Amino acid sequence: MVETLSLKGRDYISDMEFSRHEIETILDLAFELKRQYASGIPHEVLKGKTFFMLFYNKSLRTRNSFEAGIYQLGGNGHYLTPDAVYKPAAAGDEEAFITERISDVARVLSRMGHGIGIRIFGDPVGWIYGKGNAYIREFAKWAEIPVINMEDDMFHPCQLVADLMTMKEFVGDLPGKKFVMSWAYSPSVKKPMAVPQSAVIGGTLLGMNIVLAHPKGFELDPNVITRAKELSKLYGGSFEISNNMEEAFEGADIVYPKAWPSLENLPPITSAPQHDKTKKLADENRHWICDAKKMKLIKKTGIYMHCLPCDRGFEVTDEVADGPQSVIFHEAENRLHGQKAVMALLMR
Amino acid sequence: MVETLSLKGRDYISDMEFSRHEIETILDLAFELKRQYASGIPHEVLKGKTFFMLFYNKSLRTRNSFEAGIYQLGGNGHYLTPDAVYKPAAAGDEEAFITERISDVARVLSRMGHGIGIRIFGDPVGWIYGKGNAYIREFAKWAEIPVINMEDDMFHPCQLVADLMTMKEFVGDLPGKKFVMSWAYSPSVKKPMAVPQSAVIGGTLLGMNIVLAHPKGFELDPNVITRAKELSKLYGGSFEISNNMEEAFEGADIVYPKAWPSLENLPPITSAPQHDKTKKLADENRHWICDAKKMKLIKKTGIYMHCLPCDRGFEVTDEVADGPQSVIFHEAENRLHGQKAVMALLMR
Amino acid sequence: MVETLSLKGRDYISDMEFSRHEIETILDLAFELKRQYASGIPHEVLKGKTFFMLFYNKSLRTRNSFEAGIYQLGGNGHYLTPDAVYKPAAAGDEEAFITERISDVARVLSRMGHGIGIRIFGDPVGWIYGKGNAYIREFAKWAEIPVINMEDDMFHPCQLVADLMTMKEFVGDLPGKKFVMSWAYSPSVKKPMAVPQSAVIGGTLLGMNIVLAHPKGFELDPNVITRAKELSKLYGGSFEISNNMEEAFEGADIVYPKAWPSLENLPPITSAPQHDKTKKLADENRHWICDAKKMKLIKKTGIYMHCLPCDRGFEVTDEVADGPQSVIFHEAENRLHGQKAVMALLMR
Repeated sequence: MVETLSLKGRDYISDMEFSRHEIETILDLAFELKRQYASGIPHEVLKGKTFFMLFYNKSLRTRNSFEAGIYQLGGNGHYLTPDAVYKPAAAGDEEAFITERISDVARVLSRMGHGIGIRIFGDPVGWIYGKGNAYIREFAKWAEIPVINMEDDMFHPCQLVADLMTMKEFVGDLPGKKFVMSWAYSPSVKKPMAVPQSAVIGGTLLGMNIVLAHPKGFELDPNVITRAKELSKLYGGSFEISNNMEEAFEGADIVYPKAWPSLENLPPITSAPQHDKTKKLADENRHWICDAKKMKLIKKTGIYMHCLPCDRGFEVTDEVADGPQSVIFHEAENRLHGQKAVMALLMR
Repeated sequence: MVETLSLKGRDYISDMEFSRHEIETILDLAFELKRQYASGIPHEVLKGKTFFMLFYNKSLRTRNSFEAGIYQLGGNGHYLTPDAVYKPAAAGDEEAFITERISDVARVLSRMGHGIGIRIFGDPVGWIYGKGNAYIREFAKWAEIPVINMEDDMFHPCQLVADLMTMKEFVGDLPGKKFVMSWAYSPSVKKPMAVPQSAVIGGTLLGMNIVLAHPKGFELDPNVITRAKELSKLYGGSFEISNNMEEAFEGADIVYPKAWPSLENLPPITSAPQHDKTKKLADENRHWICDAKKMKLIKKTGIYMHCLPCDRGFEVTDEVADGPQSVIFHEAENRLHGQKAVMALLMR
Repeated sequence: MVETLSLKGRDYISDMEFSRHEIETILDLAFELKRQYASGIPHEVLKGKTFFMLFYNKSLRTRNSFEAGIYQLGGNGHYLTPDAVYKPAAAGDEEAFITERISDVARVLSRMGHGIGIRIFGDPVGWIYGKGNAYIREFAKWAEIPVINMEDDMFHPCQLVADLMTMKEFVGDLPGKKFVMSWAYSPSVKKPMAVPQSAVIGGTLLGMNIVLAHPKGFELDPNVITRAKELSKLYGGSFEISNNMEEAFEGADIVYPKAWPSLENLPPITSAPQHDKTKKLADENRHWICDAKKMKLIKKTGIYMHCLPCDRGFEVTDEVADGPQSVIFHEAENRLHGQKAVMALLMR
């Protein structure tokens, strides 16, 4: 079912707030736009509209897919970094003539364009879990135009759209499919929780059988777990947690192994981020790598996914990342089509 | 009266050089473009044209309004920073393979596009008052395409257009209206003189009754004062200077309180910028804040203006900035429409 | 003769790989696009297409000509810097979550747009001669869309197109014309070899009489010299090397004096870059400046060329750079038209 009205003018910040019909509507339009892109059919549905892209953190896929996407829709994107504007800050984080209060920035941009995308997590918010998400919500509170989460410390809803598209393309109908969202080792621990949390919410919303796998100490946000369990009951899938990568992989349709940090070593649980502790914990789990041996455990038709950039040699071997079951470049491409659908539905 | 010819191909650098008819022509087109934007009527009058935006200083409003504006006119903007090109420098400020002489940069860009905007004041010109303006004039001397001042150390003519638009929208015909351009306190003293100087020139040009208010030590450029006095005689308004914020506010139609530095503590008057001295002088005048009590002194129909970013809690209280008499977001929006008019008239 | 097919989908990386017909095809279209630009005839032949511009090094001309050029062709350019994405790195140069392997970046961008331009030389590749070129080739190996060299440590093929256009415009048919590619002094030795190497290849390919002039120690890459000699035999021109600037200038149709470094002081010949040694060697040759006296040695109809930025007072006097025989701003403008032709032929 396509929701023709409910997404117009909305923000797209957290995957906890959207209905199954709304996500299906986004996916439906995304596939339509992908066909049109492939066949060169123009689709300038946002002609004359401006999308502001505010990046507190670096980006390859998100930036280029949004910037190319808004252009393909007939609009225009502005690439903005906090140091090039007066750094938008919440009341309390302000410094005269260096920062500008978010409420002011959001209201000003609302008068000059038609949508605001924001990426923020980690260093720019002192690694306080949830503060990036709170910043985006503060923008949304004041903006009179849609605000889109381009990845924060809690969710990456645009990655989710691309992930669901890719799953549908490669494993077909999602209900009943086994989707393993797995932690994997990386020497770099400065990453957000966004991708796995969006994935388990989105997967349970669409009725998949989710196995969340990670070493002890790498638990997801309890609120996300609670919601995923609720959704799995509502939509007929299942949700399990495993502490064993191999067991989790058994018979999987989809494996998605990637690194994320330990919430136990981040504020507000700790008073300051303790990256060294997370590093130590991670280093004890170097065997959480997705290699050819583990890939033998999943279905022959099963696929390997990653949002990229992947830390080759740590999270995954080259053999797997570039192997026949890897769909990572299709997944990256779907960022373009998925986000075009999100912008078109929200900003029209 | 609309000047159909006199602005074509011109530079837009100093408010001291434009006639009342020319400013009225810009305002007239700006209002027309605002109506067209509001109703979605396309107005791609600069289709195929490129506007180069060279920012020595950061910017939220100026950059986004120019970048969105040129796009809405059918053209395209390039966001340029000095470190990403070979930093344009005047003869004498050059360093091999780090900088490039302005005369060369201006002549090269003239061959590749249709207009050049420049923002420069403060640190990039060693806080030498007038050097930013001189840099822009050097660009204009060599460029074969219009050069637009996106704020220098002397003038901010694009802000002026937005300010005059906003005044007309909220207080009606400008002749005879009382406009108080007032200094206000900020802990940050590293600001240009541009906004108040453009405001008093523009206000007297349009026949307003100007009161310029500031503590002793924060006088404007004497040449600006002389010109404002001349204009007030020519166009039937008045021009007064006050050293008392409350007295100045009495019965005002428009108040525009904002911080600016002390010229007495900047080169060429001093040999080096003495920001500490300005800070000390400013700190003695912390009571120059625009608060609800002072707003009671102005007309009930009077308005509060600010170019933004405003230093909340210093220049103005939240109560005033977000109160019913504040027009700051309309003012920010008018940057878009005003600058589109400027570009359309100059670059066609 | 126009090659209608052979350039489509190709990369444009090294001047050693293109036929005379292919270069002539690019020049032919470039002149056609220049006429259309001059007369305002739209030519949106790349409508809907995105060109990614990845700059490891700063740029004025290259960036603005590509960004304005793709826009004039109906497409859109993304200005990308390595720090704003995950810095693309070759396998072996990687760092987790800081860099991303080139093979991944190239394959991702291939899914989101239609061409990739890369500028890389010097510091970003540790001054290892040829490593910049190797990086671009690595991109091309993995990209499914054309890759364009926006200047590396070996070649600057887009500058060559502009140079050949300018020569044709000012001295007419190129075969038989005397073209002096000369070293010139600069206090800055951190420059690539790209411009002179592309120039001697392109010049011999088009049948010119080339004199390569430089002090001892500033020899070009032996492979380039070998190829230039071959081409001069194939196409009926000549190729000579001189160590005397004045002698070389005698009777020239075109002089192109600019600084380049000494390959003898760069890796892989040395283990680390020895800029001081090059500086010392350069300083012994301060008299290699293009001044009015030397310009008297060339033909009266002869021209002075430079890719810009030129180090005024070192490589060339103001009198020459701004004199009647200088064609440097035409040359800069031709960057725009030449690169539009390259993009149009490769990316259609």
